[in-house]
Amino acid sequence: MKVENGKATGIRIAYIGGGSRAWAWTFMRDLAMEPTLSGEIALYDIDHQAAENNRIIGTRLSLMPDAQGKWDYRVAQSLGDALTGADFVVISILPGTFDEMEHDVHMPERLGIWQSVGDTAGPGGIIRALRTIPMFREIAEAIRDFAPEAIVINYTNPMTLCVQTLYDVFPQIRAFGCCHEVFSTQELLAKAAQEMLGMEKVCRDEVHVNVLGINHFTWFDAASCRGVDLMPVYRAFVDKHYDEGFDDPAKPWDASPFNCAHRVKFDLFRRYGLIAAAGDRHLAEFMPGDEYLKDPETVRAWKFGLTSVAHRKKDLENRLARSARLVSGEESLPLEPTGEEGIRLMRALCGLDRVVSNVNLPNRGQIEGLPMGAVVETNAVFSKGSIAPVFAGKLPVELEGLVADNLHSCFFVMCAARDGCLEDVVRAFKWSPNVSARNISEAELRRLVSDMVEATRAYLPEGWYYR
Amino acid sequence: MKVENGKATGIRIAYIGGGSRAWAWTFMRDLAMEPTLSGEIALYDIDHQAAENNRIIGTRLSLMPDAQGKWDYRVAQSLGDALTGADFVVISILPGTFDEMEHDVHMPERLGIWQSVGDTAGPGGIIRALRTIPMFREIAEAIRDFAPEAIVINYTNPMTLCVQTLYDVFPQIRAFGCCHEVFSTQELLAKAAQEMLGMEKVCRDEVHVNVLGINHFTWFDAASCRGVDLMPVYRAFVDKHYDEGFDDPAKPWDASPFNCAHRVKFDLFRRYGLIAAAGDRHLAEFMPGDEYLKDPETVRAWKFGLTSVAHRKKDLENRLARSARLVSGEESLPLEPTGEEGIRLMRALCGLDRVVSNVNLPNRGQIEGLPMGAVVETNAVFSKGSIAPVFAGKLPVELEGLVADNLHSCFFVMCAARDGCLEDVVRAFKWSPNVSARNISEAELRRLVSDMVEATRAYLPEGWYYR
Amino acid sequence: MKVENGKATGIRIAYIGGGSRAWAWTFMRDLAMEPTLSGEIALYDIDHQAAENNRIIGTRLSLMPDAQGKWDYRVAQSLGDALTGADFVVISILPGTFDEMEHDVHMPERLGIWQSVGDTAGPGGIIRALRTIPMFREIAEAIRDFAPEAIVINYTNPMTLCVQTLYDVFPQIRAFGCCHEVFSTQELLAKAAQEMLGMEKVCRDEVHVNVLGINHFTWFDAASCRGVDLMPVYRAFVDKHYDEGFDDPAKPWDASPFNCAHRVKFDLFRRYGLIAAAGDRHLAEFMPGDEYLKDPETVRAWKFGLTSVAHRKKDLENRLARSARLVSGEESLPLEPTGEEGIRLMRALCGLDRVVSNVNLPNRGQIEGLPMGAVVETNAVFSKGSIAPVFAGKLPVELEGLVADNLHSCFFVMCAARDGCLEDVVRAFKWSPNVSARNISEAELRRLVSDMVEATRAYLPEGWYYR
Amino acid sequence: MKVENGKATGIRIAYIGGGSRAWAWTFMRDLAMEPTLSGEIALYDIDHQAAENNRIIGTRLSLMPDAQGKWDYRVAQSLGDALTGADFVVISILPGTFDEMEHDVHMPERLGIWQSVGDTAGPGGIIRALRTIPMFREIAEAIRDFAPEAIVINYTNPMTLCVQTLYDVFPQIRAFGCCHEVFSTQELLAKAAQEMLGMEKVCRDEVHVNVLGINHFTWFDAASCRGVDLMPVYRAFVDKHYDEGFDDPAKPWDASPFNCAHRVKFDLFRRYGLIAAAGDRHLAEFMPGDEYLKDPETVRAWKFGLTSVAHRKKDLENRLARSARLVSGEESLPLEPTGEEGIRLMRALCGLDRVVSNVNLPNRGQIEGLPMGAVVETNAVFSKGSIAPVFAGKLPVELEGLVADNLHSCFFVMCAARDGCLEDVVRAFKWSPNVSARNISEAELRRLVSDMVEATRAYLPEGWYYR
Repeated sequence: MKVENGKATGIRIAYIGGGSRAWAWTFMRDLAMEPTLSGEIALYDIDHQAAENNRIIGTRLSLMPDAQGKWDYRVAQSLGDALTGADFVVISILPGTFDEMEHDVHMPERLGIWQSVGDTAGPGGIIRALRTIPMFREIAEAIRDFAPEAIVINYTNPMTLCVQTLYDVFPQIRAFGCCHEVFSTQELLAKAAQEMLGMEKVCRDEVHVNVLGINHFTWFDAASCRGVDLMPVYRAFVDKHYDEGFDDPAKPWDASPFNCAHRVKFDLFRRYGLIAAAGDRHLAEFMPGDEYLKDPETVRAWKFGLTSVAHRKKDLENRLARSARLVSGEESLPLEPTGEEGIRLMRALCGLDRVVSNVNLPNRGQIEGLPMGAVVETNAVFSKGSIAPVFAGKLPVELEGLVADNLHSCFFVMCAARDGCLEDVVRAFKWSPNVSARNISEAELRRLVSDMVEATRAYLPEGWYYR
Repeated sequence: MKVENGKATGIRIAYIGGGSRAWAWTFMRDLAMEPTLSGEIALYDIDHQAAENNRIIGTRLSLMPDAQGKWDYRVAQSLGDALTGADFVVISILPGTFDEMEHDVHMPERLGIWQSVGDTAGPGGIIRALRTIPMFREIAEAIRDFAPEAIVINYTNPMTLCVQTLYDVFPQIRAFGCCHEVFSTQELLAKAAQEMLGMEKVCRDEVHVNVLGINHFTWFDAASCRGVDLMPVYRAFVDKHYDEGFDDPAKPWDASPFNCAHRVKFDLFRRYGLIAAAGDRHLAEFMPGDEYLKDPETVRAWKFGLTSVAHRKKDLENRLARSARLVSGEESLPLEPTGEEGIRLMRALCGLDRVVSNVNLPNRGQIEGLPMGAVVETNAVFSKGSIAPVFAGKLPVELEGLVADNLHSCFFVMCAARDGCLEDVVRAFKWSPNVSARNISEAELRRLVSDMVEATRAYLPEGWYYR
Repeated sequence: MKVENGKATGIRIAYIGGGSRAWAWTFMRDLAMEPTLSGEIALYDIDHQAAENNRIIGTRLSLMPDAQGKWDYRVAQSLGDALTGADFVVISILPGTFDEMEHDVHMPERLGIWQSVGDTAGPGGIIRALRTIPMFREIAEAIRDFAPEAIVINYTNPMTLCVQTLYDVFPQIRAFGCCHEVFSTQELLAKAAQEMLGMEKVCRDEVHVNVLGINHFTWFDAASCRGVDLMPVYRAFVDKHYDEGFDDPAKPWDASPFNCAHRVKFDLFRRYGLIAAAGDRHLAEFMPGDEYLKDPETVRAWKFGLTSVAHRKKDLENRLARSARLVSGEESLPLEPTGEEGIRLMRALCGLDRVVSNVNLPNRGQIEGLPMGAVVETNAVFSKGSIAPVFAGKLPVELEGLVADNLHSCFFVMCAARDGCLEDVVRAFKWSPNVSARNISEAELRRLVSDMVEATRAYLPEGWYYR
Repeated sequence: MKVENGKATGIRIAYIGGGSRAWAWTFMRDLAMEPTLSGEIALYDIDHQAAENNRIIGTRLSLMPDAQGKWDYRVAQSLGDALTGADFVVISILPGTFDEMEHDVHMPERLGIWQSVGDTAGPGGIIRALRTIPMFREIAEAIRDFAPEAIVINYTNPMTLCVQTLYDVFPQIRAFGCCHEVFSTQELLAKAAQEMLGMEKVCRDEVHVNVLGINHFTWFDAASCRGVDLMPVYRAFVDKHYDEGFDDPAKPWDASPFNCAHRVKFDLFRRYGLIAAAGDRHLAEFMPGDEYLKDPETVRAWKFGLTSVAHRKKDLENRLARSARLVSGEESLPLEPTGEEGIRLMRALCGLDRVVSNVNLPNRGQIEGLPMGAVVETNAVFSKGSIAPVFAGKLPVELEGLVADNLHSCFFVMCAARDGCLEDVVRAFKWSPNVSARNISEAELRRLVSDMVEATRAYLPEGWYYR
């Protein structure tokens, strides 16, 4: 990589999970629109054909006359091939298929455990993590061996455990986790500022927030926009919309399970005085008990959705079809901003800017009261080759306690993934918020754990034992 | 204070030491040039006439047609009067007069201790601190009582001990210390980038640095500009100029004792591999032994100057004369940028911007390896009502050791100022770098301590005792 | 106090709660049997007559020909009177009467919350703490003012919150909390060693244990006796007695609600691999859910008892009657060892011995993984004027999590006691183990909190508010 | 190993440095006098003949009719052979010969650096460490591989760096460092108690002390005996003997360079208010400047001795001759107590006792204010299989500073030993107390470092480089 005259050229990016039909396209679009960066992207995927398709799609994008960022795409034959010489590594993989995810998400329903996402906390997140961690161990070892100096950006869930694994395997790794949930909440604040204060055309970047928590259970204890403190503004906004929720006409809550009317978020604000900064479907999964997730009716009453895996499978079909059209040239990816932050951070890391953004990193003290080393989400300053966490302070004790319990669950997931001991999976379930506070018999819980592990067994390392 | 449409109006600033003929003028000039801020400034000074003069000067500035920032100036009758209702407090006082400073700086010369500044570390800094700390205790108590929510910016030396005192007295204070020495080193790096890389018109802001250390003994372990890593560039620059120094034609090293040819800085780079980020006259005082400060000839050979108090007195005369001319209207302060950062930080703290800058704050972990609570210098993110330190990492052990020894000296200064015990002053001297590593007999050292304390006795609290 | 020839004479003890009819008698008996200590005891009690009775009883004891420790007893008129000149302070008070305790223990039964003790964790412990903390604030202030150097031994429950309050009010206090639950578990281990290994006449002191946890939820992760590792021995002992429990013929589990057959303890050993070191009635209250405390039948099946307040009232009647007999001389307290440790610690603190024993102290790192400053139970070395905690290591994460949740509950109790805010009591309930994991509706929970607070209102400071 | 009926039998000890003619004899004598321990000792030494001689001597001892502890001695052929199956490992080696030590101790004299011991701090200790650390790395690796559960007792100097190396290589090691300097100071306090208070027959064990510091620069901030606070007693004792010193008729200070009249110790007490707990010859080497070690005359005036290596060589000759007599049976080792503590600790570690004694261990917080992980000396509780440090509190800042500087020196020694970089040796010298505060030119210092390294080169790993 060479930086000169405000441009970074010859950047080498290794994209692990390069066959992705979601993040990869977003990423390639953003790159194609960024005039100051160029170089080579090595796509690596265990689905070689998917990577090859994306190579064609990426190359088409880069060749578009309007494309300002010019990139060479190639398919890497191995992790080592992808990583050798890389300046940046992007990780965005799907651990297993939607068939496994179907079990993750829906099997616990038999005990009344409804999961609105099922990829982070709770049974679904835990089992998904058991599949993911071995893959991340392999990736981390490869980075240590082939690209120890590279900057590593992870987009894969469960974020906390993925980043934890990278640092556990290779403590010197320069990795961070990037998640857009915070952005949506900044956008909600922008809308609140517009509605309540009459501000005009507020964009997300103008909403400055102090971020603290863990991924998908992230909080703002301070927010301002153009010099105006947004905390009282948000309070009034919540009061106004508490009963009905705030439904964005651009994305009505019932149009997609990814949308919400923020009623959970508003309820949490009243309870804790802080702004919850993730989609309601994520937040609900972190709350003990079944208040927001008792059954589909309750969920509907809170105006968010259960993201069924059937929906995801359907969506995948569409994306596969689209992929074929993009490969054939029948359709092109539009050169429009995606709202993601990855490229902006990459520019800063090349030294072309200095940026403050939220990030998932091991705790070195940026959040007081949470254990050192646990992966937490706060702001960081991104500059040439450096991601420096910013002090975020301390969560209120109630939230600290909820986070701590979830970190206990994570601790046992890590144990389970390391030692392959079923008992640790049971412990992880027990400490997870949507299991801990319910009346579930020991026997039923153990049967669920056992069945869920069985359903994903193909992805677990050999030597895993029951005891 | 009200923030609206990108402007903060009705800001109330309490300026403690408001009769200052240096910082106050700088500050008033910068305010007058800033279009987005306006309000009222209460000048408080024990020299009431000096405050009154600055009121006139400030008002004249504000009335100038080109002045973009409009401010009402008033003279406050008491600390409480100045502080009540204040949004910001600026502290820039001279503890005692140049007569006391004359003893601080020159009395140790009888033992061969030459001091190039004498206001921070070493005998001069220690005795100055003994005068300053009681004043800062009083100020901190007044802030606690009259303006507990105000943001407090300190410019007074010795910086470390002043900020420490503020936090000791009132732990909830929102204070930070602001020092421009880092800026000069960023400018030096800008010049290095121009000279070695042919970059054009580099301005200080473009030089991104990781700052760590304590005030006046501050270091960069990373620096970049427009995406280019400046560490190797600086190494080449040092090699080129090591023998002769780098003499800026705009401010030749021998034109003023405040200038230098950076030879000490270059030597420290070779020794430690980090960029020392303060003027050579400050750095020299932090190094053990007398390598750079053996005698005036040695100092001259290293191409920096001893700032004699005679020079300061002469300079004060000029400034007094100028003050008279400014009051009478015979002369006006120019509306030109001063290069200081204070107003920029104030804008950010009003929420009009988000800024990364260096700052002196108690250590909450931003520097690993230094004691928690000790006042250290690192970057911080400034935003609406918030100063959040940025993780700076760890100094190399050698520098950590030098800093630690100096913090031991500071510890005993704080003890001495609290308990009035002469023995603690002796201890502070012994741990200070330009005393510790010399062959000075116990008896002579104690005599020096005793004489220096005697010379400043008028400024010490009653009840101080010898033992 | 004077220590000479192996004896400490002229010791001055202030006994707060000196009218006690349980601990005070134990304490006076032990003192009367200890030949190396003598001095004066000032009994202070808000029930003046009770203190006067104990003065008579204590004096009688001291005059008995067999009494080896000679003590002068007097009744103190005020806290200050009791404390002035004290070398030791003993605190053993009953906060409120058994009428209040009746509400503490039994009111939650209406929601199915059965409490086997109700003085430590859970609703009963929380409400008791709200009565106790104001008293302890007053005591701590008096110690600070009248006896800042005295060594303070607390026996009052809830232990953790009492000791926490003492340190919060007066951080320099030399206080510790003393509890005999650990001793009973050492005795159980002694019996296990006798039964399984054929050891003879094992006494409690010979069972060396590593103690870690919080009061009444304390654990051993190592135990040995006469050089034999007792962990495997205990495992075999548990296996042998798991189904039926171990019933000590000297104190059959169903003879008193204070006894148990250790079935809960054995179950916890199987679950966590550590030896739970408190009575089953205490342990059960710290476990989430209602496994051991579902209803009286469940409790009986686990072979321990619910300590009803009716039982306590009955017991008190007996003790009042006995007090009258002791005062009149109709009956005498026997000069027999009580099995308590207080006097032994006092001897060590006088410098007559050096002793290792378990103790409740703020965490300075003796337990890793628990918050600094939280009151924890570990071993300490007692010697002349010194209580030095011994490093105990780290709890397994599961137990660490349970302790942490309970500390969150404690945190909110402290907030409630400081600010008088009902909402914090609700939070304390929610984080307490025997509430958190049950299906209790928000409304019912709030009604319970409200009723319980109301029932104890006479003991709460004025100015307490609802919101 | 089996423990039964108060006896531990079948103990297996690996003695690394088993050819030693000092510690080994002491150790074997103590073992022979201890009735509760027996087993096998594997002597390992690179001087195979010396180990063989000790095998004969040990066996003779064990066969003496009065010997109460029966041990089988064998010579081990390798580290692995010695360690396999070991319950305890004793390490007492001489790194190099007295020829190398001659350079360590005397070469620095050319710059006026007189060393009274030269095996711990300062140039001599540093160079000795460079020889020792590679050996300790090898030993630590062997322990990890062959006896990971064994308890390891180190007697080798430099103690701090030896123990640090063991933990660096194998963090799970159960090692501690044992040093008798503290005992001598307890004996001095016993004598003070006898002389000043008329106490009779005080033995060392009765002097309870709080120990804190680093090996050979260890301090007591509390001391008592039979319940009497010894701090004021010692103050009076120091006042009485300050001018002339306290000369024990049993070991007059000028009879051996290992003796002293405690004048340095008394002077340090006046200076810092704490009792220095090591021989004056060790203490003097830790003080900056040359106050106590300016030249042989100064040393004599302070009434301690310079331990010349000529003296050590002479002594070795005597011991070699004695070894021959002991092997031939011409002479026998006497069965008298040696005053060492090792066996007592071993008994406790077998579970036959619980003992509080001083020990060198990595800092886990037992000393506040010193870095975590640095090897420090405090009390610990020894019990069955456990060495638990006791909280010792904090050194006064002056002493903390001196210790910290010395730890910086240690840090660079570790770097030098790891990387083989001469520059780190220079740094270690500069931070060592008897170099740092002197007027030594850079050039002379570097020449000394270079010459000293050269003189010991045969013991340094290959691949060491100069730069």
